[in-house]
Amino acid sequence: MTSLPKPIYARVTLIGLGLIASSMAHAMRANGLAGEIVGYAKTPTTRATAQKLGFCDRVCDTAAEAVAGADLIVLAVPVGAMAEIAAGIAPHLAQGATVTDVGSVKQAVIAAVGPLLGPGVAFVPAHPLAGTEHSGPTSGFATLFQNRWCLLTPTEQSTPEATLRLRSLWEGMGAKVQEMDPAHHDLVLAVVSHTPHLIAYTMVGVADHLEQVSNSEVIQYSASGFRDFTRIAASDPTMWRDVFLTNKDATLEVLGRFTEELFALQRAIRMGDGDQLHAYFTRTREIRRGIIDAGQDTSVPDFGRVHAPVAPKA
Amino acid sequence: MTSLPKPIYARVTLIGLGLIASSMAHAMRANGLAGEIVGYAKTPTTRATAQKLGFCDRVCDTAAEAVAGADLIVLAVPVGAMAEIAAGIAPHLAQGATVTDVGSVKQAVIAAVGPLLGPGVAFVPAHPLAGTEHSGPTSGFATLFQNRWCLLTPTEQSTPEATLRLRSLWEGMGAKVQEMDPAHHDLVLAVVSHTPHLIAYTMVGVADHLEQVSNSEVIQYSASGFRDFTRIAASDPTMWRDVFLTNKDATLEVLGRFTEELFALQRAIRMGDGDQLHAYFTRTREIRRGIIDAGQDTSVPDFGRVHAPVAPKA
Repeated sequence: MTSLPKPIYARVTLIGLGLIASSMAHAMRANGLAGEIVGYAKTPTTRATAQKLGFCDRVCDTAAEAVAGADLIVLAVPVGAMAEIAAGIAPHLAQGATVTDVGSVKQAVIAAVGPLLGPGVAFVPAHPLAGTEHSGPTSGFATLFQNRWCLLTPTEQSTPEATLRLRSLWEGMGAKVQEMDPAHHDLVLAVVSHTPHLIAYTMVGVADHLEQVSNSEVIQYSASGFRDFTRIAASDPTMWRDVFLTNKDATLEVLGRFTEELFALQRAIRMGDGDQLHAYFTRTREIRRGIIDAGQDTSVPDFGRVHAPVAPKA
Repeated sequence: MTSLPKPIYARVTLIGLGLIASSMAHAMRANGLAGEIVGYAKTPTTRATAQKLGFCDRVCDTAAEAVAGADLIVLAVPVGAMAEIAAGIAPHLAQGATVTDVGSVKQAVIAAVGPLLGPGVAFVPAHPLAGTEHSGPTSGFATLFQNRWCLLTPTEQSTPEATLRLRSLWEGMGAKVQEMDPAHHDLVLAVVSHTPHLIAYTMVGVADHLEQVSNSEVIQYSASGFRDFTRIAASDPTMWRDVFLTNKDATLEVLGRFTEELFALQRAIRMGDGDQLHAYFTRTREIRRGIIDAGQDTSVPDFGRVHAPVAPKA
């Protein structure tokens, strides 16, 4: 746990004002981590909503204006939009400023953004493993990062001081921070996040396309497993399109493994090999126990979803 | 909503005392639906636990003894164990008794159990779409079925009176009841439950087998999507083995569709077809909205999982 004097940054500029940026604003304010919080978003509607909600001290109409004089600039836009934003702000960045991002893919962001930044600017790529299925400026809240991981993937453009300071900010917002090689990050995320999302999207699409079972049946009877997939598959389409396009290699590799294992289980079903199925399902149960033991999820049944009490009837 | 005088059955016997049976016992007792609740389980440990917890009025050491004089007998064992149990109890059933089950597959249970029951006994297959990832007699609770569906799949062995009475019991435990053709039930469940479970098991298995990413990394960083899969994949291995072996045709059909769609999305990723991905992900988001509108899940972010408050630091 590193602890710098507060506020850690005199001025933080958030570019893109969705779930992550608005949650950062709430968390920085709740913990006194930023002297001033400045915001910019591409669409006038989002800027107006942010202005009304008041989680930034100022909302600017241009990115250039927003980054002027900032110590930390956070790129919180979909991965595919990072390069254009970086190109636009680069000439306006203060000497000694740090640029970071919150993208779910790191190699592609580093390749796109890094070369656009001048030598007097540090670049510390970051990825908070936090989110909900909701998006937009109204969905942020101060405790989103509490007890969640934030992965930093420093490059040769990250000075040790800039990395340490950013770590301190994330810790101040309640996150646990780990440094990781960018390529390894992308593979790990392909396993724990990107491929599961693609699979969930696919399963929901299959249900939608199946003509013998109506959508209303799928919706009514979803409680038996399917609805957990729909939650994952309800995430922001633009963000996820960009994730798959920019983390293509790792996602395709993990998908290949997935298909291989799925075919093995499918064959076991077809051949009636109950022992193989039972052994497989027993092993996966242990991984769940590991996740609960590691404090990464609740052991309360059904995630603690509320089951209404039964009112005794007359 | 049908309403019969209470208690609806003078004596209910539960065979198998896991999550579903123990929840039924709690719910029947809380709502005064059964005059006496009798229980039987195969293993002495389960019987002892049930005895200690006291959710049955009596726990018997043999199934034959447990079913004697019962008005309703509930088979609450894994689908693959139904036939053996039914064969064992058939000679001991009272004339006019009703047998039901709570299996996740209906055609296979009907084919296995139906022929074993004598002409004086009604058989009304049922499937409550409720459960958690926990199993065993300690995991039951009275509100498990509240606002959840229970599907009845009557056959020529189900008299209208027996079906009506069983419907009344499930409604008394808080469930919404729907009748359905057994074959259609098995297909619907293959879509909303069985295939999603197999896919979740597979994804967790892939993560376990991938040598470049350690299990501790998978566990630590699971919050980003993967942990929802592990919850599903933590369900009872014996129950699920039996589901796949006995609902083979429908599961394999839906799996075939799944693979087809997955390959289409995989190809879109490989070819960089962002428009196709975006359109697909937008459509699946609408299905999630339908599920929330239908009251089948909470719209609270992240299922309402508790995010600890950020303590302001000095």
